[in-house]
Amino acid sequence: MVYRSRPTSDSWRAALMGAAFLSTVSVVSAASAQTGPDVARAYREAHEPAIVRDFAELLSYPNRASDTEDIETVASYIAAKLESVGVSSDLLRVNDAPPIVYGRLDVPGATRTLGIYVHYDGQPVDPTRWTHPPFEPTLYTRAMEHAGQPIPFPSEGDPVDPEWRLYARSAGDDKAPIAAIVPVLRSFLDEGVRTTSNLVFFFDGEEEAGSPHLREYLETYRDRLDDIDVWLFFDGPAHQTGRPQLTFGVRGTMGMEVTVYGATRNLHSGHYGNWAPDTPLVLADLLRSMKDPVSGDVLIDGWYDTVDPLGEEERAALAALPPVDERLKRELGLRWSEGAPETLPERLLVPALTIRGLSAGNTGSLARNVIPNEATAALGIRLVKGNQPVHMRALVVEHIRKQGFHVVSDTPDMETRLANERIARVTGGGGYPAARASMADPYVREIITAAGEAADRAFGAGSLVLTPGLGGSLPLYLFTEVLGQPFVNVPVANHDNNQHAPDENLRIANLWYAIDLYAALLTMPANVVP
Amino acid sequence: MVYRSRPTSDSWRAALMGAAFLSTVSVVSAASAQTGPDVARAYREAHEPAIVRDFAELLSYPNRASDTEDIETVASYIAAKLESVGVSSDLLRVNDAPPIVYGRLDVPGATRTLGIYVHYDGQPVDPTRWTHPPFEPTLYTRAMEHAGQPIPFPSEGDPVDPEWRLYARSAGDDKAPIAAIVPVLRSFLDEGVRTTSNLVFFFDGEEEAGSPHLREYLETYRDRLDDIDVWLFFDGPAHQTGRPQLTFGVRGTMGMEVTVYGATRNLHSGHYGNWAPDTPLVLADLLRSMKDPVSGDVLIDGWYDTVDPLGEEERAALAALPPVDERLKRELGLRWSEGAPETLPERLLVPALTIRGLSAGNTGSLARNVIPNEATAALGIRLVKGNQPVHMRALVVEHIRKQGFHVVSDTPDMETRLANERIARVTGGGGYPAARASMADPYVREIITAAGEAADRAFGAGSLVLTPGLGGSLPLYLFTEVLGQPFVNVPVANHDNNQHAPDENLRIANLWYAIDLYAALLTMPANVVP
Repeated sequence: MVYRSRPTSDSWRAALMGAAFLSTVSVVSAASAQTGPDVARAYREAHEPAIVRDFAELLSYPNRASDTEDIETVASYIAAKLESVGVSSDLLRVNDAPPIVYGRLDVPGATRTLGIYVHYDGQPVDPTRWTHPPFEPTLYTRAMEHAGQPIPFPSEGDPVDPEWRLYARSAGDDKAPIAAIVPVLRSFLDEGVRTTSNLVFFFDGEEEAGSPHLREYLETYRDRLDDIDVWLFFDGPAHQTGRPQLTFGVRGTMGMEVTVYGATRNLHSGHYGNWAPDTPLVLADLLRSMKDPVSGDVLIDGWYDTVDPLGEEERAALAALPPVDERLKRELGLRWSEGAPETLPERLLVPALTIRGLSAGNTGSLARNVIPNEATAALGIRLVKGNQPVHMRALVVEHIRKQGFHVVSDTPDMETRLANERIARVTGGGGYPAARASMADPYVREIITAAGEAADRAFGAGSLVLTPGLGGSLPLYLFTEVLGQPFVNVPVANHDNNQHAPDENLRIANLWYAIDLYAALLTMPANVVP
Repeated sequence: MVYRSRPTSDSWRAALMGAAFLSTVSVVSAASAQTGPDVARAYREAHEPAIVRDFAELLSYPNRASDTEDIETVASYIAAKLESVGVSSDLLRVNDAPPIVYGRLDVPGATRTLGIYVHYDGQPVDPTRWTHPPFEPTLYTRAMEHAGQPIPFPSEGDPVDPEWRLYARSAGDDKAPIAAIVPVLRSFLDEGVRTTSNLVFFFDGEEEAGSPHLREYLETYRDRLDDIDVWLFFDGPAHQTGRPQLTFGVRGTMGMEVTVYGATRNLHSGHYGNWAPDTPLVLADLLRSMKDPVSGDVLIDGWYDTVDPLGEEERAALAALPPVDERLKRELGLRWSEGAPETLPERLLVPALTIRGLSAGNTGSLARNVIPNEATAALGIRLVKGNQPVHMRALVVEHIRKQGFHVVSDTPDMETRLANERIARVTGGGGYPAARASMADPYVREIITAAGEAADRAFGAGSLVLTPGLGGSLPLYLFTEVLGQPFVNVPVANHDNNQHAPDENLRIANLWYAIDLYAALLTMPANVVP
């Protein structure tokens, strides 16, 4: 299935015809509003139907990173949007990679520069699994799974229910921030509100493809980025409880594979069973030596030695996190969790070793009466701040050696087999390290304060959750290592946005929160003396 | 590829044209020979080319159990051969199964009845992997892998080299016994030699398909079998050293499968790694609890309790076995074996537990960043005399329970998952028990003596190897349990006959041995008072 690059005449779009588009509407007065957040909210309240329609237009642009024509089209569209609200924009390029939508808004006298990261590409789609075509945005009265019904887009003056959901690919991941930052800047421009920081916009076009050119972009365009004091990563969903959150770190990741060897061929389990090395069992024994399945303790020497200890702020944030374990276990059909009574957020702050896959011989209807001559485990390793992939890989290899294995990197030849009792081939490694911002960093503290106020306003007092670290991995170390700049992850999407899945959606209330939040962040006081 | 059912005009056969066929040759005098073995050997020496050609004719009949027309054709051909040497023969039938070629030769005054088991069906073939078509028998000067060359079939009077090999499907497994017993009986008939036992021939037509109707045949035709005192199983290869052997038992077999469960779905290894149960590791831990990978000791309570102890004769036979371990390990690229210093033949006399397969998630290029939600091991269990499958299965299940698992037989539902920490689904079992003849049985002792003399004659003094038990499994328990009759396995094929594989072959010296051996067995003294 091929999507048009530039939709112009589809039925959903017909429903929008005649509506005022955001970049062309005449702005109502917000003269009484004084603060940035007040200005932005007043603007939003006056233009809700147009903001929703503008978001829908943005979502109608297909955006898979590998579809070059599509990605160029949406990049140009976004750059033009930024230009329309006073941001000087262009497209950065390396080789044939999707361009970075770059933008800059300098403020005379500003003592701080914020980097704003968004990605405008989206996960590939399988339209057959979507209720509506993924690039024909569809508005619902609420989530489909809660009996939501499709409705037409609102016209100017119509009320907009914050429980509405807008369904389309990238609604939650990650076009919503673009749909929110543009009206904020529009309102500031209209009302003469100045941001308290210089702004650098850096919109990635291949995040869902693993950002393979990110390092090259950062190195090539370092001079356009090197005055950034702190990055705001506008990506990701709210806390599992539905409350807004800030997060301060991601784990690094590394994959390894271990294969142990028996005889040169599969052996008949009758003729040789009890005599030939039971290769899958040798592997089971090795894996068991690496980790306790109940406590989750990794038993590899030095595994925890390089972990950067948490600061006082991180420990306090952990203690204040709303509990999620019991709900999660019920949802997942689990009566226990590894390492209990430690909780999920605590467990995500130490390096993890899990088995991603096992294979040896066959199971099920394909099982045969053999002793398999090799057995393989794929290991998944998650790193936390302080762990270096090369070092952690070396610890794993050293552990395997200590269990009596001769470690090789290729399939062993006959000479190697006859010279060594236990042989393990270890491959993989690579990966990348974790990144974590210190919650004690002064720039980070300013962001926490501003976001807390916006969350109070949008969702109620004390609603903001501070999550020291996420379990998943993003190559944020590139920003911290290449540029040496801290970051805070500032998600706005509803937690149930079906990220990466069919029927991705954004709850309108979360778009309103994004507008409040960004307005607060763009006008927060600058207390740090540079 | 379809084979003709009754080959008549192929090139290999053309080479045989004009040769005298065994059933029609005029018999040379063996008047000076007095004993059965002498008579049979003299006959063989006078008819070597014809015997080889007759064997080739037998091998030219395709014999896959599921090819009904082929199997009926070869069964009738064999029954006619038996009739031609004085055996009253017919085909036994149950349903649509391949017939049993049944034969009977009663001797006035005989006090013993021998059952003779052969199977006339063969393994399926993949002709593309054979050097010559599998049902166009081809004579070689020696084994292909030892630079043998194809040669024409010999004419009457030509010398026959015992190192020649005859290549065709079933040459070793299991038509050679038919090609040997017929000339033995022919020579006896010609020279008036009487066998010292009544003979019952029972030739199976679906052994390579697992003999699914064997029990039914034995039960249906019990009255034709119930006077048998001891069975001779003419099947299998010589000892790995190349020396002739008798074997006295086979292990039973049973397959089981264990699946352990984590969350209801695969979980992201970043978001949940260190918290979600590491299901493959839970499985590894369970497997490791069952067995020590180095000593090979099965750690399941009661595992060894029901093993029938070996008798004095079996222990003496074990001690006298030629060593095979070091050669095997070199061949298989192994520096160690499970349970060393115990040797392979010793290890085959205790029940075995091996892992036939492991599966969880994916390895290699398909590995993904998940914590697999289930992990499965296929277990291979080999039983020895005394072990009952139902009991051994119960021991495995009880062991799994003792490790803290709730054992189920179906995929657990949500309620079961939430009520139990560790859940294992156990399936399989069934299988069948081992069978082993006591080497102290008086009938068995007579066979040992006669076979020893034949082996001395064919291969040199003391060449016969007595192997208490084979590691593999055959449903011989049906004979011992349904009929209550002991058996001795009497193999004749060369150990390198490529059984079940392409380029299956028989070394001619082994055919000559079979003739010596069968003549000795058919004329051994009957000392047991019935």
